[in-house]
Amino acid sequence: MPTSASDRPVRDGRDDRDPPVVDLNSDLGEGFGSWEAGDDEALLSVVTSANVACGFHAGDPLIMRRVCERAAALGVAVGAHVGYADLRGFGRRPVTCPPEELEADVVYQIGALQAVASAAGTAVTHVKPHGALYNVAVADPVVADAVVRACRSAAPDAVVVGLPGSHVESAAAGAGLAFAAEGFADRAYTPGGRLVDRRTPGAMVLDPDTVVERCLRMVLRREALTVDGEPIPLAVRTVCVHGDSPGAVTLARRVRAALEAAGVVVRPVAGPGVAR
Amino acid sequence: MPTSASDRPVRDGRDDRDPPVVDLNSDLGEGFGSWEAGDDEALLSVVTSANVACGFHAGDPLIMRRVCERAAALGVAVGAHVGYADLRGFGRRPVTCPPEELEADVVYQIGALQAVASAAGTAVTHVKPHGALYNVAVADPVVADAVVRACRSAAPDAVVVGLPGSHVESAAAGAGLAFAAEGFADRAYTPGGRLVDRRTPGAMVLDPDTVVERCLRMVLRREALTVDGEPIPLAVRTVCVHGDSPGAVTLARRVRAALEAAGVVVRPVAGPGVAR
Amino acid sequence: MPTSASDRPVRDGRDDRDPPVVDLNSDLGEGFGSWEAGDDEALLSVVTSANVACGFHAGDPLIMRRVCERAAALGVAVGAHVGYADLRGFGRRPVTCPPEELEADVVYQIGALQAVASAAGTAVTHVKPHGALYNVAVADPVVADAVVRACRSAAPDAVVVGLPGSHVESAAAGAGLAFAAEGFADRAYTPGGRLVDRRTPGAMVLDPDTVVERCLRMVLRREALTVDGEPIPLAVRTVCVHGDSPGAVTLARRVRAALEAAGVVVRPVAGPGVAR
Amino acid sequence: MPTSASDRPVRDGRDDRDPPVVDLNSDLGEGFGSWEAGDDEALLSVVTSANVACGFHAGDPLIMRRVCERAAALGVAVGAHVGYADLRGFGRRPVTCPPEELEADVVYQIGALQAVASAAGTAVTHVKPHGALYNVAVADPVVADAVVRACRSAAPDAVVVGLPGSHVESAAAGAGLAFAAEGFADRAYTPGGRLVDRRTPGAMVLDPDTVVERCLRMVLRREALTVDGEPIPLAVRTVCVHGDSPGAVTLARRVRAALEAAGVVVRPVAGPGVAR
Repeated sequence: MPTSASDRPVRDGRDDRDPPVVDLNSDLGEGFGSWEAGDDEALLSVVTSANVACGFHAGDPLIMRRVCERAAALGVAVGAHVGYADLRGFGRRPVTCPPEELEADVVYQIGALQAVASAAGTAVTHVKPHGALYNVAVADPVVADAVVRACRSAAPDAVVVGLPGSHVESAAAGAGLAFAAEGFADRAYTPGGRLVDRRTPGAMVLDPDTVVERCLRMVLRREALTVDGEPIPLAVRTVCVHGDSPGAVTLARRVRAALEAAGVVVRPVAGPGVAR
Repeated sequence: MPTSASDRPVRDGRDDRDPPVVDLNSDLGEGFGSWEAGDDEALLSVVTSANVACGFHAGDPLIMRRVCERAAALGVAVGAHVGYADLRGFGRRPVTCPPEELEADVVYQIGALQAVASAAGTAVTHVKPHGALYNVAVADPVVADAVVRACRSAAPDAVVVGLPGSHVESAAAGAGLAFAAEGFADRAYTPGGRLVDRRTPGAMVLDPDTVVERCLRMVLRREALTVDGEPIPLAVRTVCVHGDSPGAVTLARRVRAALEAAGVVVRPVAGPGVAR
Repeated sequence: MPTSASDRPVRDGRDDRDPPVVDLNSDLGEGFGSWEAGDDEALLSVVTSANVACGFHAGDPLIMRRVCERAAALGVAVGAHVGYADLRGFGRRPVTCPPEELEADVVYQIGALQAVASAAGTAVTHVKPHGALYNVAVADPVVADAVVRACRSAAPDAVVVGLPGSHVESAAAGAGLAFAAEGFADRAYTPGGRLVDRRTPGAMVLDPDTVVERCLRMVLRREALTVDGEPIPLAVRTVCVHGDSPGAVTLARRVRAALEAAGVVVRPVAGPGVAR
Repeated sequence: MPTSASDRPVRDGRDDRDPPVVDLNSDLGEGFGSWEAGDDEALLSVVTSANVACGFHAGDPLIMRRVCERAAALGVAVGAHVGYADLRGFGRRPVTCPPEELEADVVYQIGALQAVASAAGTAVTHVKPHGALYNVAVADPVVADAVVRACRSAAPDAVVVGLPGSHVESAAAGAGLAFAAEGFADRAYTPGGRLVDRRTPGAMVLDPDTVVERCLRMVLRREALTVDGEPIPLAVRTVCVHGDSPGAVTLARRVRAALEAAGVVVRPVAGPGVAR
């Protein structure tokens, strides 16, 4: 499955002699009220795209505003990190609801961030589902369609970010929306190109050297590794860098430095000045 | 105070021989989840502007969507009814917070409704604070400024709806935003043109005939009545019709019929096709 | 399955010549803040047990207090109607979480209602899961165990109310807690004694005469009817009467009158003065 | 005002030759869902009383359960840290509501924690208002009475913790409830014994040596210092140790060590094995 998408996203419109390009994205603004999560300030100096929580699973309007202001100042692209309305569960629990309710919730979140981003001098140029919504939308076409319908009506020019080969990719294609395949350098993949459940032993790659190496493999060779260490083809345009664990910022910096040392151009998939 | 505003809003750009014009607005979409409030469907067939709750004091994205769809179908103008984040208190309790937090909250709500309205085929053309925020903003210039700053960045072309002579009016004027003075035919006024607190005896006008009569007086004679029955000058462009009490819809219909029988043109202050 | 429970609950400790006995229970206090749901006052004059929402799927402390005060005044037994923390979904959506989290949530809800009930001069004498939690606990032993563990630690003397033959019944038995089998006169059953999903045609019995007739059959003949009209054995100690639809109160009164006319004693399964 | 209470709480029933005694209390369990706040584990090894957030301004049932379990294991007394229902504002914003609503909210929170504490093998032996509720109750007798009425009905044997000389103290006395005067070694006082608003320069004492010295003065000399450095009489039975700033745990340990080095017995004001 993932192969079907492999040629398109990476070099679309580009010549093979061009240097490889990738976006680094991170989930930001994940505090709520007085609670903080992650070092947004530090990550914004490393990544090229910020997925901003929109108040449903994390984030509140003031936090959103501050992240957008810093992102604008640093030239980092802003995207809506849309999730289930579940602060207590941090959006990691599926919330079953009719597709029209989910669609309305996603439209609401995108619109809210658009206004906040605009007030901060920037704009929403991508949309990425969060947590349980990300995972459910990979496999459930009804959910993927609802998310994509919401993107099409609220942000038709935004890039939808998701797993290559997922229902989100095919729904985006069907709706005529731009899609950016996303990879995770710190996660093991199934042979079919899905993420191994994080509770499975070996699912999470903890060793920083290995994460850096896997990221280079993903961007330069267009390959991911399964939980058994087998390479599978996987072409991605953006790699997710996590910021909520100790050492996360240091690792993000290393990943970026290694990519640039290898001649990779690190830049947003979308955002001000990015041609589609 | 209210006199200062009296000539401007009502006939602005119009000739004295033109028929009088007024907007009828109502607070709609005030349910949450499975809870309902008021008969939105019926009121949408009576009023010309719908103030749609944006999920903070009432409303949720699906309810917002449905109200916007019906409003679009019926040609009713849609506005953001922005409030404090207090579902349990229905936005009727002041929530003290720094002005930048309030501003961010109002921007968020307006943006959310803009995306929902757009998905429903309409647009947000006015903004009206709800409940405690309405009242606090009347008297507190810091709060009025925060609300108006939010409107200017999220909806610069929208009309701000509020009490004539209030700090909201002066803040809107200072920010270069259009303002529509609002009147309440079912409320007694202070001699200074403020609303009498609803807990004061005589503050609420319950008799339907009296409400109709007061509405005609407000639109045709540009006068309101104090709690002692004294007329005061009050020029309004929109009259609020409540929908959450028994008989509310019937009364709203009577108000509209009486206005039209008296030759008043009932139409939105803003919205598709309304010149500003 | 349901047959296994059929003899025990109904006449346990009673002579066959004693008149049949049943409890009528209803879900009450299902408003939130200014939103109302159902006519609590009227239903409290009909039923013998009130299942009081505890603030997670509906209800708030003040609503809980008022329902408890009226229940105390009318001699209606009070139970904790514990649910998932999901106001917007009214507790009708399953929320997947680790069993220790669910257990803590149920303990919290029971304790909150105990204090409120005590302040109102009454006590929590039964516990009944609500909505999605009710349904999930019927079929999932991990969830049923978590709910029952919570009951055992927070209300060891309370009666657990649930579907006969469910995992809730067996978990209660295993924990040494009293269990009261509950029937629904307005719902069709599967041949195995489960409730037919409410979205299935024929699942909901709407005709009042039929509801009354089914209730008499349930109490007097210890039988329910499947969606095909086939009788199945079902012995219940309490029948749920709904209060949130038009005509609900009238129907509840008819059900009670018909039971009493047939010689049935209508009284709580638990509560002040009820021997266990 | 504070002098009136000064002799009673500290040595009540004790001989002057007995060593001085004080309780160290800290606000714990202040995370929510996946958000954390403070190092509960470390503070529980220092303090003698834990004020546990009850889910309204912070905390959730699972967090409450874990704090109670650790407190039980370490012999730390558990109290209900009751607050306004305002997660986003962390209970630091006053929420105006009728006293019966506040009373119901406090009863609810105490009851919820009682059940959770009981399941964890301990009990709620004190109640302390949090944040804005603490401050409002100091000065507003209607709010103080509502809080105390809630304590009397939900936890009549618990000790109410509050500012000496406050309306909470007089309301507790009027209701026949035990009261423990609380001091803050890291806060400046007004000449009248109130806390100086935290936004006033000099209100917060940041230097650790000074905090330790002020704590010793408070316990040994029964004196606090005003913002001008003037001593005022202040007799307290419990001193609050904050845990949510960097260095907080280290400072708490130093405070306890200094007290014990000076011969002070550090033990709970209430709790298992504490005579009243």
